[in-house]
Amino acid sequence: MRYPSSLCLAISLSAGVFAQFNTAHAASFSVQSPDKQLTFTIRDDNNQPKYQVSFQGKPIINPSSLGFDFARAPSMRDNMYISNTVRANSHNTWQQPWGETREVVDHHNELLVTFADKSTKVNQYRMRIRVFDDGLGFRYEVNKTNARYITRELTEFSIADSGDSTAWWIPARGWNRYEYTYNTTPLHDAAHVHTPFTFKNKHGIHMSIHEAALVDYAGMTLNQRRPGTFVSDLTPWSDGIAVKTNGQFKSPWRTIQVGDQAKDLLNSHLILNLNEPNKLGDVSWVEPGKYTGIWWGMHIGKHTWGSGDKHGATTERTKQYLSFSAEHGFDGVLVEGWNIGWDGDWFFNGDVFSFTKAYPDFDMDAIQAHADKVGARLIGHHETSGNVSNYRNQMEAAFALYEKSGVTQVKTGYVADGGNIKRIDERGHARFEWHDGQFMVNEYLDNIKLAAKYKISINTHEPIKDTGLRRTYPNWLTREGARGQEFNAWGTPPNPPEHTPMLAFTRMLSGPMDFTPGIFNMGFNGLGDKTNRPQTTLAKQLALYVVLYSPVQMAADLPENYLARPGAFQFIKDVPTDWEQSIALAGEVGDYVVFARQERARGKYTGEDWYLGAITDEKARQIDVALDFLSPGKRYEAQIYQDGENANWQQNPYDLAIKKQRVTHKDKLSLNLATSGGTAIRFKAL
Amino acid sequence: MRYPSSLCLAISLSAGVFAQFNTAHAASFSVQSPDKQLTFTIRDDNNQPKYQVSFQGKPIINPSSLGFDFARAPSMRDNMYISNTVRANSHNTWQQPWGETREVVDHHNELLVTFADKSTKVNQYRMRIRVFDDGLGFRYEVNKTNARYITRELTEFSIADSGDSTAWWIPARGWNRYEYTYNTTPLHDAAHVHTPFTFKNKHGIHMSIHEAALVDYAGMTLNQRRPGTFVSDLTPWSDGIAVKTNGQFKSPWRTIQVGDQAKDLLNSHLILNLNEPNKLGDVSWVEPGKYTGIWWGMHIGKHTWGSGDKHGATTERTKQYLSFSAEHGFDGVLVEGWNIGWDGDWFFNGDVFSFTKAYPDFDMDAIQAHADKVGARLIGHHETSGNVSNYRNQMEAAFALYEKSGVTQVKTGYVADGGNIKRIDERGHARFEWHDGQFMVNEYLDNIKLAAKYKISINTHEPIKDTGLRRTYPNWLTREGARGQEFNAWGTPPNPPEHTPMLAFTRMLSGPMDFTPGIFNMGFNGLGDKTNRPQTTLAKQLALYVVLYSPVQMAADLPENYLARPGAFQFIKDVPTDWEQSIALAGEVGDYVVFARQERARGKYTGEDWYLGAITDEKARQIDVALDFLSPGKRYEAQIYQDGENANWQQNPYDLAIKKQRVTHKDKLSLNLATSGGTAIRFKAL
Repeated sequence: MRYPSSLCLAISLSAGVFAQFNTAHAASFSVQSPDKQLTFTIRDDNNQPKYQVSFQGKPIINPSSLGFDFARAPSMRDNMYISNTVRANSHNTWQQPWGETREVVDHHNELLVTFADKSTKVNQYRMRIRVFDDGLGFRYEVNKTNARYITRELTEFSIADSGDSTAWWIPARGWNRYEYTYNTTPLHDAAHVHTPFTFKNKHGIHMSIHEAALVDYAGMTLNQRRPGTFVSDLTPWSDGIAVKTNGQFKSPWRTIQVGDQAKDLLNSHLILNLNEPNKLGDVSWVEPGKYTGIWWGMHIGKHTWGSGDKHGATTERTKQYLSFSAEHGFDGVLVEGWNIGWDGDWFFNGDVFSFTKAYPDFDMDAIQAHADKVGARLIGHHETSGNVSNYRNQMEAAFALYEKSGVTQVKTGYVADGGNIKRIDERGHARFEWHDGQFMVNEYLDNIKLAAKYKISINTHEPIKDTGLRRTYPNWLTREGARGQEFNAWGTPPNPPEHTPMLAFTRMLSGPMDFTPGIFNMGFNGLGDKTNRPQTTLAKQLALYVVLYSPVQMAADLPENYLARPGAFQFIKDVPTDWEQSIALAGEVGDYVVFARQERARGKYTGEDWYLGAITDEKARQIDVALDFLSPGKRYEAQIYQDGENANWQQNPYDLAIKKQRVTHKDKLSLNLATSGGTAIRFKAL
Repeated sequence: MRYPSSLCLAISLSAGVFAQFNTAHAASFSVQSPDKQLTFTIRDDNNQPKYQVSFQGKPIINPSSLGFDFARAPSMRDNMYISNTVRANSHNTWQQPWGETREVVDHHNELLVTFADKSTKVNQYRMRIRVFDDGLGFRYEVNKTNARYITRELTEFSIADSGDSTAWWIPARGWNRYEYTYNTTPLHDAAHVHTPFTFKNKHGIHMSIHEAALVDYAGMTLNQRRPGTFVSDLTPWSDGIAVKTNGQFKSPWRTIQVGDQAKDLLNSHLILNLNEPNKLGDVSWVEPGKYTGIWWGMHIGKHTWGSGDKHGATTERTKQYLSFSAEHGFDGVLVEGWNIGWDGDWFFNGDVFSFTKAYPDFDMDAIQAHADKVGARLIGHHETSGNVSNYRNQMEAAFALYEKSGVTQVKTGYVADGGNIKRIDERGHARFEWHDGQFMVNEYLDNIKLAAKYKISINTHEPIKDTGLRRTYPNWLTREGARGQEFNAWGTPPNPPEHTPMLAFTRMLSGPMDFTPGIFNMGFNGLGDKTNRPQTTLAKQLALYVVLYSPVQMAADLPENYLARPGAFQFIKDVPTDWEQSIALAGEVGDYVVFARQERARGKYTGEDWYLGAITDEKARQIDVALDFLSPGKRYEAQIYQDGENANWQQNPYDLAIKKQRVTHKDKLSLNLATSGGTAIRFKAL
């Protein structure tokens, strides 16, 4: 049976789609960004709620469906009309306690639309739409006591002119959570993808679809159901339900960031602006900073997590690391493998982990005494291997122990295959959940809230994707949630040269990432392109501290490797992790990116210096940068760490040139990046 | 957090995987095919039920997991051991009432394995494994009253040597059911696919994963969760549950067809052999045959389904078609658009359809009288547009009406987007289901069972995929379930030249397809490669009657187009649709295929003639064929319909050469196929 011609049109040409909606007696309401570039239109033609979006007069989202299916209540699909609308707008500035920028401007226009059932006239749901200059967000607000179990959210994103678009994506509902290398394909070849989902249409407009404020709801993935039309695909509970509510709920914000150029996406604060303000009150106890760790040694096989001759987490080694860290200005030392449980088949049986009992060769009291003496902190570690019930049972005791020991930051880990987070349900049965389903969305946030009670900040590994909750819960410092440096130790393959310039335009749009940069010894398996090693130059390792934002940054390599290269090490010692402001200066997705950031006044940092980081993929590049971001009338010493003339990532990654020159805001610099190279600059105010 | 090395191994090399299982105190049982080529091994190492398969001594399936998750009962995953095994074997021959071959040999060895819970010692499930020379099947048999709602089936298919394998696939859970053009990609690039899923490993071994006897269960799709490892992904109900049972259930057979060459897959009867025998008793009332239809005219815009000047289904036209069909030896005439409902927005609102009220210009009694007079039958049509409750409410009355009118075959239709089959649940709420979820699996079969009560046979469009149920319910004649000829009228794009040689090795492995071949006028939009038209030569249209098996075949074009080409039309008039035996002689997936079939004695057919069909993709080919399938000592007149010397599909599709020559089983023929061409031959016994 063929499709009715109207639908063929809808599939074949967007013009046809628009035509479909030019019928009489249909309500249609639009809301524009303050700069009038972006227009969101919502309508009820044929009693089918739909929205569409245009940018600079061109459609970027064709008419797309809205609604829900529920397990034990009628669907909210069609037979709807717009019964009420309310407009509002906001223009204010708020401050981050820490972040990539101190002041954030929230300037948007809002439209609140109520949809009612055509037959019963009863209101079904409200759509709250906020349109900013850098993108927009819309959310569902449902107040209907018999609609409790969401089985499907029907939100569509029907990309206009999708035929000639390019997309950058990782697969959703896969075995490895978010830890994939990114695919670059025609948009039509993206099947089932995670967000942020970044793409570029044939007019060169860059967009990224994601969500903001993911709370008590399932994570949204996107499924390409028709060429160019992506449908929300909520990650379900193990019992198949997508979202369990009490009948009254708000969805997370569905967000679309839009820009003329790729770099515009990096200068957007849309996700933060759509989150709730700080709910923790005084968070002066949350501290950005830098740390080292007994960690990389395990990844490269020098040490072990488990006990024995090669046990990494010994009292002696921890003391050495604490002394090293204090001496070189680091705030803390992460120690993994300190607790009982690492000797068994822990990956498949997380029940074995204790979060309060240390191995006998790890003396917590002695370590704490040494930490106090030298002036560095122990950073805690909780690896659950995805057995969340076992962790849940010990969590409060574990935080209490750390608080008593002066630990203020904990790195958590939830390594397990996708769909294999193990929990014990109320009947005592084992259930297997996804990392991004509603159960884990709540589990991760509960962990943050409980940690806050103990004034502990969290760095989550194998996390739920970031949706800007650091604004509401500032002790959720950072997370991994992508292929990090660890894959360069043993990943097959290690992260390719394009990986970090790709992360900047995809994963990093969601929030901070603890990539753990700063590997100085790339020869642990030999150089070349066939071994496990960071596929970068040394200069690129330095630039990552500026490019990949995180309020806590690790110096990931072994102390002896830093002492062997004091010149390069100086940059890591100098670079801050908290910023007054950040500016993406240039870049293309997966090719290269340049960031300038001004340090924020905190501790030893006066707030006067600027830093620059530039990285490239497998191609060597010359990038000219105007220094007009520097303060007019001020003079700076540019301390430049750049690839040497003979540098290339495969055979000569260590060729690093360090030079100093005077500059002002009127100057330009020409950056020369080697293959998979980078440039890192400190602009020291004179 | 990194993976433990054992798991890294498992991911990186299959050798590693096997190594993992060479541990002591683990039970392992194997069962081989009668010819000893194929070995299925099942084991409980580490209390993890796993199976693996080897062919000719090489692994083809690496150790793969088994089991279930349930909504309100403990999972059946690990902590299991093999508590009991039973062996059996079978070697017998059974007969099809109609089919591609009359006699089917069922020769297999069986192993029945019981898994028990390690702690409770209670038996959890049984695996019944049957290994044939042409492939194998295994099914779960669960008898556990508190395990009712399946949320996930954990069956894995971990393909060995998957790195250098090629796969041919269509996407699962998409908007368009099964009606896609096939992708040819490295196996690792297949994401979420439908079955039959056909692929070739680096040793040239061809395999196809599918299922047999899909009854009261959800359809299985395959999700590539790790490179080379596909996991069963059951299409869920609208409430998220995968399968609802009473606690006692058997899964469909999970099947793997295996062959040295692509054509071996086509000569397999595995799927039929794994289905139950005929449950309908005397089915002499089920009749294969050929038909015409008031149908193509609507697709090319000459007529309309709805009423008005261009209404196709008029009494007058139906009488003309009945006379034409009787005159040229066709059994029936399909008439679409005869019933009330086609004038409204039927695609989105199937409630409008009546299955008993005809349009005023369609006089059922007068038509039936004419049908009886000329000796052809009306073929019924039920388009539901996926509104199954509306159809269900009228189904019995609709079949009763047809029985009274002498109609013995009905074509049903379920056109609707994937996931948008509308049903009204017990609470009166609209529910939206998938075509291949458990609800529709049952709905389709109930339709077949009810039709049988009225001695009516069914040809299902937008069906559930075929899993061999025609053996158990012989009135389920055929179905579409793939991109058919209709897409050549309006599809964007139309079916490419490789489409039919692709279908032969993919969709056709599941069972008969009503492709509706035989379009003679390809110029309705003009020729060339930019228009909607069959992208074939005329000879290829004829060859499709032999290549794409269906017990009912349509002569799809308008009568005047057949009368304009009497020479070519003769082959359609001659070719039978029921076969004594069928032999795939040669072929490569998506490139070309050659079938020889011996007619079965029925009506005017003596059973002595043979037919041959050969088709190619966009490449012209010369294919040499030995006629050793013909009966020794018999002489035949080969009536050959082949592409003319100047034939090509784009500009010269009509160049057809018809010649006759004497042949015996000792002869060879050299077939010359034009671009997207074909050869059709009748071997008339002399």
